[in-house]
Amino acid sequence: MKIAYLGPIGSYSYEAANRFFAEEQEKNLVACDTIDDVFETIEEERADFGVVPVENSIEGSVSTTLDYLLKSKVYIVKEIVLKVEHYLCAREETKQILTIASHPQAFSQCHDYLRKNFKEAKLIQVSSTSYAARMCAGGEVDAAICSLFAAQQNNLKVLAGPINHDNNYTRFFVISKNPNFEKGEKNKTSIIFSTYDKPGSLYKILAIFNLYDLNLTKIESRPAKTNLGEYVFFVDIEGFVDDEDVSDALKVVQRKSTFFKLLGSYSVVCPDSDNKN
Amino acid sequence: MKIAYLGPIGSYSYEAANRFFAEEQEKNLVACDTIDDVFETIEEERADFGVVPVENSIEGSVSTTLDYLLKSKVYIVKEIVLKVEHYLCAREETKQILTIASHPQAFSQCHDYLRKNFKEAKLIQVSSTSYAARMCAGGEVDAAICSLFAAQQNNLKVLAGPINHDNNYTRFFVISKNPNFEKGEKNKTSIIFSTYDKPGSLYKILAIFNLYDLNLTKIESRPAKTNLGEYVFFVDIEGFVDDEDVSDALKVVQRKSTFFKLLGSYSVVCPDSDNKN
Repeated sequence: MKIAYLGPIGSYSYEAANRFFAEEQEKNLVACDTIDDVFETIEEERADFGVVPVENSIEGSVSTTLDYLLKSKVYIVKEIVLKVEHYLCAREETKQILTIASHPQAFSQCHDYLRKNFKEAKLIQVSSTSYAARMCAGGEVDAAICSLFAAQQNNLKVLAGPINHDNNYTRFFVISKNPNFEKGEKNKTSIIFSTYDKPGSLYKILAIFNLYDLNLTKIESRPAKTNLGEYVFFVDIEGFVDDEDVSDALKVVQRKSTFFKLLGSYSVVCPDSDNKN
Repeated sequence: MKIAYLGPIGSYSYEAANRFFAEEQEKNLVACDTIDDVFETIEEERADFGVVPVENSIEGSVSTTLDYLLKSKVYIVKEIVLKVEHYLCAREETKQILTIASHPQAFSQCHDYLRKNFKEAKLIQVSSTSYAARMCAGGEVDAAICSLFAAQQNNLKVLAGPINHDNNYTRFFVISKNPNFEKGEKNKTSIIFSTYDKPGSLYKILAIFNLYDLNLTKIESRPAKTNLGEYVFFVDIEGFVDDEDVSDALKVVQRKSTFFKLLGSYSVVCPDSDNKN
């Protein structure tokens, strides 16, 4: 089984892929440079599954994932929720720390710790925490703020952590070319629909979900890139696509919207906790 | 007048700040390393205005801005919408291009151009397009993909561009400690509210906007960090806070939600086009 993920090795997507496909005996994890590459790899069937961040406070952009879900022919088949914890890591324990590399958002999330302990250190902003770990291993900086996983991958020593303030979780989607939706214990269904830019048009669609007693766990509007003033809505619904209420509601929503796409119906896996949507 | 913005010099926030405050004779633009720093600078009144990206496909995370709008005591006083265009830039025109630096999303947006013209070049991912321009100026890479502005700031020659595919716009907020809301030609009002995680609770709030014929230009749900299963909704409404319908609707929304915050009421400035919300 071939699994494409947003690389490099040691990224949070790598961790998600590894943990989710842990049982898989014969797996081949393929790092992609960008979220675009993961989607293209799946569309062109060069891998069986792809793992991309969707609500991600660290590695990159949700919008890229949402845009690709809108335009590409792939389906969501699983959601993985991972706890994000940052560690201060270095090659050796004793060296003075004058430069620290990490992703800007990781710096944000470790703001209090850094202000207290490394007020004078120079913070080097790089594109991912795993890249920071690699830079540190290569001796380009004294320390990196990264995941435990990235530290292990790069043979770094953990000096402190977790050093981030928030109780941080990141959502990943497992995507596939085939809509093989599998029902689990906790399920969600994701759709995209469009309405015209008129007062009350979203409200009318939400009335349908309300009628069928469906709970929305996420709603997000984005400008549709086709027509100006037209919007697309990304909505996650609690429930599986073959539940009667879900199935009936979606039929009506499809009829009453100007654009409709079923992104997937999938179970949610949270290896870290009893937590989270 | 002191204006804090998400730096470094040449960033899209810098461009937004410069263009919006172009008429201002005595202005002092202060670069901040992170969005956090911009908000803190404004909260502690070390600057009069701050400029941060809010729906931004390039430089960083919207979520950080949204999180700070939720928790900090600052107001939105203006929205600026800028067109985002990427250029391929280098120190000299003739040198062979083997390495190109940029932000991962800028690479995504120039994907077709790069694939066609620089299939073999090594792409170096960095935290911002302006940092890429600086690296290029310093000779660390052969070329950078950045804004025209960043190219000028770093004395780079423009080799090609705009090279991005999408018609890309980025929204910025001007924030201030004082709620000096000024009505313009096109106005918006931004609020945050919470509802309990029950089917239909969002629907009931939207019914209020519907009743008063208000159009929502954006709606986004985010998990509230206080109680699990509770959500906050970020909503932008067309209209100014002293319009009768807006004012009346907000009173009802405030009464019917578990949490309510007025983020600001402001006019929208689009120097680049006749376009955009």
